[in-house]
Amino acid sequence: MNTMETWLYSLITRTPQEGFELAIVLSQRGVLYTQPSEEIRELLRPVYSTNADSLIAVSQVIAINFQTVAAANNYWRDPRCR
Amino acid sequence: MNTMETWLYSLITRTPQEGFELAIVLSQRGVLYTQPSEEIRELLRPVYSTNADSLIAVSQVIAINFQTVAAANNYWRDPRCR
Amino acid sequence: MNTMETWLYSLITRTPQEGFELAIVLSQRGVLYTQPSEEIRELLRPVYSTNADSLIAVSQVIAINFQTVAAANNYWRDPRCR
Amino acid sequence: MNTMETWLYSLITRTPQEGFELAIVLSQRGVLYTQPSEEIRELLRPVYSTNADSLIAVSQVIAINFQTVAAANNYWRDPRCR
Amino acid sequence: MNTMETWLYSLITRTPQEGFELAIVLSQRGVLYTQPSEEIRELLRPVYSTNADSLIAVSQVIAINFQTVAAANNYWRDPRCR
Amino acid sequence: MNTMETWLYSLITRTPQEGFELAIVLSQRGVLYTQPSEEIRELLRPVYSTNADSLIAVSQVIAINFQTVAAANNYWRDPRCR
Repeated sequence: MNTMETWLYSLITRTPQEGFELAIVLSQRGVLYTQPSEEIRELLRPVYSTNADSLIAVSQVIAINFQTVAAANNYWRDPRCR
Repeated sequence: MNTMETWLYSLITRTPQEGFELAIVLSQRGVLYTQPSEEIRELLRPVYSTNADSLIAVSQVIAINFQTVAAANNYWRDPRCR
Repeated sequence: MNTMETWLYSLITRTPQEGFELAIVLSQRGVLYTQPSEEIRELLRPVYSTNADSLIAVSQVIAINFQTVAAANNYWRDPRCR
Repeated sequence: MNTMETWLYSLITRTPQEGFELAIVLSQRGVLYTQPSEEIRELLRPVYSTNADSLIAVSQVIAINFQTVAAANNYWRDPRCR
Repeated sequence: MNTMETWLYSLITRTPQEGFELAIVLSQRGVLYTQPSEEIRELLRPVYSTNADSLIAVSQVIAINFQTVAAANNYWRDPRCR
Repeated sequence: MNTMETWLYSLITRTPQEGFELAIVLSQRGVLYTQPSEEIRELLRPVYSTNADSLIAVSQVIAINFQTVAAANNYWRDPRCR
């Protein structure tokens, strides 16, 4: 594993939307560890971002990571129920 | 992450059907963050919406997000402690 | 989201088999929201229903939705353990 | 939904292996509800059963259903409260 | 379901690594039940084991089964917390 | 199963980021058990690491393994009872 700066401090977010956006970051990091070259990743972006099936697949990875983040935050339920 | 208006306030819904519809919104948002251009997304819609395998993949993303929403709502079963 | 009649009242079912059949309904609804035209959906049916990989993918979506329904019903375990 | 005979009475099994075999049945039922014709299903069998990627996909559906069955059985670990 | 010898006695393992290796066995068994012929499976091995996407798909099935095994073992956490 | 050195001692990590990196290791090990030849794996690396859909699939496997690791660590949220 390449040494990387600290980018993930906590799974706890203030709001569900911030949690969803953290899920996006996690999904991107999965790619970033596998393809560290920003140049190559930028070349790939127009490919998957204009392909319906690729976009659906991206949305699926985000959904899986959002499950994790949402559980970590106890689904941002009423704090008395945490 | 682009700054975006607030679109997700809570995972709690009144009914299971509203929860399912929130799962659809979450699935769409995963795409929207990755491809912000509404023009391109509109071009892709006729592609995936008439392709059986794409529609099955969409349904899978919804199913994953529905797991999250359903858990957040305690499966709409216990009227106490939501 | 198009306004739709109420089609999902509860995730609770009397039996595991009814829960499995509800999981099928949920999987179909994921498609229906994305492709509302019954005409187009009927055109696609012979495509995916005679393709092995499509059928496996459908079965996967059902499996994911069945996880949700089964959890909602506490796996139809002995009611004393609910 | 076609009316079907009762085929799923319980998710509880005596052993983990029976639970795994129930997960296989659930995976097959997902296909069977979507393609009720046994004739067509038999035609498809040689296709997916000799294709590596199809077999991996089948194994994935079984794995998802096994998660459900294993949870239902409390992972066959606690002899009290099944 | 073909009658098969007993191959799965328990989901409990002594260590996380043994749990991961059990997850591999479960993934293989999903294939084995669907394609019982060892001859055909051996023919397929060079296909998927030299294909990047197939290997990623295999790793995904293992990951799903590892979720089950890890939960069964309460994540091999400190035994006082089980 | 080939005998392999011990590579997985615990699912517990000090930080969420270390947990994410463990999820990457688990994803790689799933491939390594299936294709033990480092030579072949190195040949495949330029294939999947420059293909958008492969990278998305890798990110999905990591997301699934991260669910397991995060749950094992109680989402790094409760300092008591790890």
